[in-house]
Amino acid sequence: MSNVGEFELIARYFERAGHPLPTQVVLGIGDDCALLQPTPGMQLAISSDMLVSGRHFFADVDPATLGHKALAVNLSDLAACGATPLGFTLALSLPAADPAWLQAFSQGLFALADRHHCPLVGGDTTQGPLNLCITVFGETPPGQALLRSDARAGDDVWVSGTLGDAALALDALLSRTALPAATLAAARQRLEQPTPRVALGQALRGIASAAADVSDGLLGDLGHILKRSGVGAEIDAALAIELIAASADSTSARGSFDTASPAQAAALRYVLSGGDDYELVFTAPAHQREAVLQAGAGSNTPVTRIGRITAAAGVQVLAPDGTPVRGDWTSFDHFKA
Amino acid sequence: MSNVGEFELIARYFERAGHPLPTQVVLGIGDDCALLQPTPGMQLAISSDMLVSGRHFFADVDPATLGHKALAVNLSDLAACGATPLGFTLALSLPAADPAWLQAFSQGLFALADRHHCPLVGGDTTQGPLNLCITVFGETPPGQALLRSDARAGDDVWVSGTLGDAALALDALLSRTALPAATLAAARQRLEQPTPRVALGQALRGIASAAADVSDGLLGDLGHILKRSGVGAEIDAALAIELIAASADSTSARGSFDTASPAQAAALRYVLSGGDDYELVFTAPAHQREAVLQAGAGSNTPVTRIGRITAAAGVQVLAPDGTPVRGDWTSFDHFKA
Repeated sequence: MSNVGEFELIARYFERAGHPLPTQVVLGIGDDCALLQPTPGMQLAISSDMLVSGRHFFADVDPATLGHKALAVNLSDLAACGATPLGFTLALSLPAADPAWLQAFSQGLFALADRHHCPLVGGDTTQGPLNLCITVFGETPPGQALLRSDARAGDDVWVSGTLGDAALALDALLSRTALPAATLAAARQRLEQPTPRVALGQALRGIASAAADVSDGLLGDLGHILKRSGVGAEIDAALAIELIAASADSTSARGSFDTASPAQAAALRYVLSGGDDYELVFTAPAHQREAVLQAGAGSNTPVTRIGRITAAAGVQVLAPDGTPVRGDWTSFDHFKA
Repeated sequence: MSNVGEFELIARYFERAGHPLPTQVVLGIGDDCALLQPTPGMQLAISSDMLVSGRHFFADVDPATLGHKALAVNLSDLAACGATPLGFTLALSLPAADPAWLQAFSQGLFALADRHHCPLVGGDTTQGPLNLCITVFGETPPGQALLRSDARAGDDVWVSGTLGDAALALDALLSRTALPAATLAAARQRLEQPTPRVALGQALRGIASAAADVSDGLLGDLGHILKRSGVGAEIDAALAIELIAASADSTSARGSFDTASPAQAAALRYVLSGGDDYELVFTAPAHQREAVLQAGAGSNTPVTRIGRITAAAGVQVLAPDGTPVRGDWTSFDHFKA
């Protein structure tokens, strides 16, 4: 361990003297509490995520990408609520205060924070096994936050961006599958530096009926919406499979849908149950289709309609001929995996 | 590990169906974000603390006291700002989902939360080395939060409650010192179940000029006030030594002040540099002495005046005859200790 004390450490890598703060941040780092003054009338959206070494990232991960990802997964929760970021706190447990590691970590963290005008307002540092806990704050107009509980039968089911690459990269890094180097590099970028869909989330306020971010797998996270809304869903397998990114080695998975194709079955599994993509899954009434497409275009975020909400509970994955497609699409659970 | 999944775990031990929420909590556990609506015009005070097994508590600590302490250290930060608690998030990394441990932990946590009308509004659970990160939210009228930066030369220095017992208990538990069983039990209570001075903090709004909570040691935490306010302080050793709790075996440390007494020197060291007491150290103009005493009485919290703020930087500990008392009062630093 270098001879850097806790307070010196905070000052050197995390206080950014002279860096402009949004008007809602009355007081940032350095006191017992940070002080926020949300825009008058707005509600405050809050989410907290903890990332543990060996569980959410490899211990030898590039610290700059770790800094990015730790904040990205939290911003993704704000995105899923349609909230505008205000700031975040960081609690950091480190085995040692390694200046090179901290320099890279804070650089990756702040690059993403600056892109979203979301300053670090406080936190904690301690010595211990590598663990990062970020709590993020955003604001939304009252009654306009996107919740999981308002999906209705007949709504469309939509997904942003592409799905499955992060899980594909993880399998390759764990030697469960083999990928060409260029494919792995592209997929790994999705795993290690996900893009939180903050602008899309805000654009969907008043349009989407329900939303969640895809952290544990599409069917698992859609399942949270279904459970809290008391509805079910049908997913079109032929549409879902197109969500596997062009970057993945999925050429053979494209084309006419064939459940007997092992390549297509594998691609479908990555799309439906792969975690860590941090896209949004959301529902919207059918009359909002044009508005959803405009929200996607306006936020430079691809959106794809992949199914519909049903009154009957449960999720059915359907082939183009309407027959159910079977598969093991268990979602990731931190205490069962 | 028992066969309890993450979501079931959250539901069983942390969702409290039917438990009343304050009106400021629009949406609690179960969505991507919690939603708060602070009282119109109020500022939001935020603090985050991370507790690591083996660093902040013994791995075999009673989980009920751990639940209490994890929230108490965060409420103590709100107290130091004079904020009224609104709610908190909990991120929890656990080696295993042990129902008995979780039951006791959540009971200790919620007993303190309920006492302060401060509900759990969200969080995260994952598998990994035992680590708890709580982020707490409170509110204060604009401009009335107690900060570290507004102490002025001539102000009195005050401390709430008693100091030193937590450090004394820690030394005894680490076999660095020996204590009679009853004394250890009382001191250990202070170490494991500190009382956040939330009511006192609120009562000091508009009276105290600056405040901090004593987590790392009196001189260290007072030092944060001095640094940010650009001032120094003189502490009266004979007054400070009286802060060692009656519970501690300090009978021989009381009476006329004598720097040559090893018992008094040891007691003074516990008072000045012992951490983990979670009392408040605060400053107030001399004309507010009566108001400070009333704030203490009104919140059932003893308050003791132990010194004064000076224009000259640095801290002097003074004997009754005005001569400086010397000692090693290094404060606790998580990366140097």
